[in-house]
Amino acid sequence: MAAHEKNNLFSMRPVGRIKNSLSKPMHRPDPDAEPDVKREQGKANQRIIKKTISQLIIDPAYEALLDGIEEFSHIMIIYWPHLLPENERHIQKVHPMGRKDMPEQGIFATRSPARPNPILVSTVRLLKRDKNILQVIGLEALNDSPILDIKPYIAFDEADGEPVFPDWIKKLHEELKSE
Amino acid sequence: MAAHEKNNLFSMRPVGRIKNSLSKPMHRPDPDAEPDVKREQGKANQRIIKKTISQLIIDPAYEALLDGIEEFSHIMIIYWPHLLPENERHIQKVHPMGRKDMPEQGIFATRSPARPNPILVSTVRLLKRDKNILQVIGLEALNDSPILDIKPYIAFDEADGEPVFPDWIKKLHEELKSE
Repeated sequence: MAAHEKNNLFSMRPVGRIKNSLSKPMHRPDPDAEPDVKREQGKANQRIIKKTISQLIIDPAYEALLDGIEEFSHIMIIYWPHLLPENERHIQKVHPMGRKDMPEQGIFATRSPARPNPILVSTVRLLKRDKNILQVIGLEALNDSPILDIKPYIAFDEADGEPVFPDWIKKLHEELKSE
Repeated sequence: MAAHEKNNLFSMRPVGRIKNSLSKPMHRPDPDAEPDVKREQGKANQRIIKKTISQLIIDPAYEALLDGIEEFSHIMIIYWPHLLPENERHIQKVHPMGRKDMPEQGIFATRSPARPNPILVSTVRLLKRDKNILQVIGLEALNDSPILDIKPYIAFDEADGEPVFPDWIKKLHEELKSE
């Protein structure tokens, strides 16, 4: 049994593990660093992540469940930040990416891994499938992270109409892409 | 403690519940129905879902975590299909939407709720926030579904480049939008 509900508690077992060269948490410069040090660190991290190739080693028992996935260019990976300290699941608000020059946000208004149920969702490019192993590029997940689910990326399912974002998101995005 | 890892088992508690008028599973016509009956049923379901307004009742203990979410037009809801029978988590392959005229796919190549770890991800339009209650439109989730996480929808995080899909996805999409 891979998953069950009991007493309002939902339990899951990993269906695989992520293998890559990212062995320690990124986006974690000295918490007291100046905003521009953090900004440069963020850009450097982004450059590394964009080029990082990850192997998704799926439990061989689930190999047949991957059939057909190779026809998609992008997949959504649902994974667990296994190195996140337990107490970080109780955080209520953060400055996005630790940047004190950005307005503090409630955790549900950010993509911070520190959240009550730390389920992370990333959409990345699928390079190839070899039996129970998927190769993807650009996944910001640490080596050995447990995979909870794999879904195809279907753009039609995503946001309808023109999405609107707060200014801090636009600013972060502009900074990170200005390479 | 909202979430923990023990013996390779990840446990989560809901952070809220979905309230809407969808009280029974959709997309579940008679399994032996002809493809065009199922297609019409799928279109009818889609029409209902697109107009359905859901209230996301977040546990008041997490109210502060929502601060800032009202600045996003769309949010991603991570929820649990609580009415999914346990045995459906062992399915390996399905015909998309039960349509025998569509090629059978591995579960990880579909968005079927029947999966080893049934974590569902939906991006929908946020209509308003009132303290710990979010109102959204177009969410395909059944009444009382437990919410595991809420994330902002940030298009820049989504697929880079032009996404590619298999033909069955294009066909389903064309059918569903042809209203």
